[in-house]
Amino acid sequence: MKVIIDAFGGDNAPEEIIKGCADAVLEYGVEAALCGDEKKITQAAAQMNISLENIKIIPADGVITMEDDPNLIVKEKKNCSMAEGMRRLADGEYDAFVTAGSTGAAVMGSTFIVKRIKGVKRAALAPIMPSAKKGIMVIDIGANAECRPEMLVQFGLMSSIYMEYAEKVKSPKVGLLNIGVEETKGTPLQLEAYRMLKKAPLNFIGNIEAREVPSGDCDIIVTDGFSGNIVLKLTEGVAMYLFGMVKSAFRTNAKTKLAAALMMPQLKQLKKKMDYTEYGGAPLIGISKPVIKAHGSSDANALKNAVRQAIRYSESGVISKIEEIMPSLNEQIKAAQSAQ
Amino acid sequence: MKVIIDAFGGDNAPEEIIKGCADAVLEYGVEAALCGDEKKITQAAAQMNISLENIKIIPADGVITMEDDPNLIVKEKKNCSMAEGMRRLADGEYDAFVTAGSTGAAVMGSTFIVKRIKGVKRAALAPIMPSAKKGIMVIDIGANAECRPEMLVQFGLMSSIYMEYAEKVKSPKVGLLNIGVEETKGTPLQLEAYRMLKKAPLNFIGNIEAREVPSGDCDIIVTDGFSGNIVLKLTEGVAMYLFGMVKSAFRTNAKTKLAAALMMPQLKQLKKKMDYTEYGGAPLIGISKPVIKAHGSSDANALKNAVRQAIRYSESGVISKIEEIMPSLNEQIKAAQSAQ
Repeated sequence: MKVIIDAFGGDNAPEEIIKGCADAVLEYGVEAALCGDEKKITQAAAQMNISLENIKIIPADGVITMEDDPNLIVKEKKNCSMAEGMRRLADGEYDAFVTAGSTGAAVMGSTFIVKRIKGVKRAALAPIMPSAKKGIMVIDIGANAECRPEMLVQFGLMSSIYMEYAEKVKSPKVGLLNIGVEETKGTPLQLEAYRMLKKAPLNFIGNIEAREVPSGDCDIIVTDGFSGNIVLKLTEGVAMYLFGMVKSAFRTNAKTKLAAALMMPQLKQLKKKMDYTEYGGAPLIGISKPVIKAHGSSDANALKNAVRQAIRYSESGVISKIEEIMPSLNEQIKAAQSAQ
Repeated sequence: MKVIIDAFGGDNAPEEIIKGCADAVLEYGVEAALCGDEKKITQAAAQMNISLENIKIIPADGVITMEDDPNLIVKEKKNCSMAEGMRRLADGEYDAFVTAGSTGAAVMGSTFIVKRIKGVKRAALAPIMPSAKKGIMVIDIGANAECRPEMLVQFGLMSSIYMEYAEKVKSPKVGLLNIGVEETKGTPLQLEAYRMLKKAPLNFIGNIEAREVPSGDCDIIVTDGFSGNIVLKLTEGVAMYLFGMVKSAFRTNAKTKLAAALMMPQLKQLKKKMDYTEYGGAPLIGISKPVIKAHGSSDANALKNAVRQAIRYSESGVISKIEEIMPSLNEQIKAAQSAQ
């Protein structure tokens, strides 16, 4: 298993990326390569006393930043660390690619350098979020701000295969994010997607309201990228806000500080349960090779977990399963469209 | 000040509605009327030992339920408690109307019985949500699943007037919910709304990502009803889920139970801060008279606070301010549209 990692993606690059990569090599015995400016990688590793003995360096020029137009990855910045990593993945030299860099560039680069699976209309970004019961996949969380119904149906099927093969969830339950549970709720997008999802070869359990998302009753939440982005970021925002309030409540006086000391093991456990870094990154589902987009603020632990996810994704056979089933799904979609 | 209340709206009607109404009369000295089946109201009040001496009863036939098609409020169910209350409001007999009943029916009934303010394209449901700093208004949270850019601009201005006059927020800060802060983010709806909001006579501070909503840096979040509904319900869902986790952490063992006892005053305060019932209901902004939609699961306290909000809304002069400014805003919108 050979994983290539964008050394210059994210807010904490390259230090935390290098550290996370070294940890992953140690912990998972993976063959890893860091992609980017060789001198900077070597210097940063030396400063942190990290040996690069078992890590390859793939040289690349420059970085595509969060502020850059994502299109630059196939134009002026086509030699940047992210683009080069994707090229090596596309060439078959590596089995999976991990980046914590710009989401837009990751989507653009994956689509045009690594390319989509045949028949897939759009690739989607699908992180696994913590919930009351287990991790739930939300697809899409921002690769496609606007979606058509047939895209949502493809998202539903591709994520079902991912959850079944990479996460070992048997017959994963798929819900459609909506503003009510009734079949008649939502905009034309949801109405039509509902109709198609009912007939698709997956375990569709109907509409799910945002209030129920954290309960974890669904394994997969299908939605357009605009709404999915709200779900992901608002969950983070509300959790941060509430933990902040709980924290300051514990700091009120001597009594509450004692309470905090008594609660320490449970509080740590709670924090770990809510920690996105434990869940790795988001697979770019629909791309013909495993690409994992780690959170932009990934630290070494998050990066290490993203590498673990990349390994699991690559070994699971998810992509060949999607390739296999896509033609017949597209036949069904076509039939549903012409039946209207 | 005369407020009419739908006695049969919501999950806890009529008991909690009657109780909340009686509490509001006592606490705010408001003249209140309960609308609905007279016999049932009298019986329920007698069972709870609540005197109806200072509360008028407006008889009405039947109830429009959450499951009913909202259109029934102007058809087969045009004599139901919600419709009758709205008619009395429209007639000028009462100053404001409160219902905890079906949202769809409240929007439909307000629009066709009470009617919109002249020039307003669509009425919007705009609750005030708790945040880290203060209450923030989210407009729209579900009256209009699909929106056009000019509707969002009207929402921005109407809510600004509401927050300024009814909530005494000076020059309220308006943010546009989006998937990134840059002007180029989002779907065509956000792109165009951004362009128009920049020029509108309100304090537009740009795009706001869902992660920042709970921080309370904005006073108003403008969004389409589909996304707004997600914001409202997901905030509730995540809060419930986290409080559930904190609660069970406090119940782990003798040590944590002691911690809970030590933290009791702070925990109660936290709970109160997050309690939607403290914030009253959601005004249906854009309607020509004050209509407040209380939460479907309102208890007496929530209903009482919704009545308080109805009084404030009515006394604030918000509606005549909106009437005054709407023609010039619509001129600006027209100019922006033809400039394209």
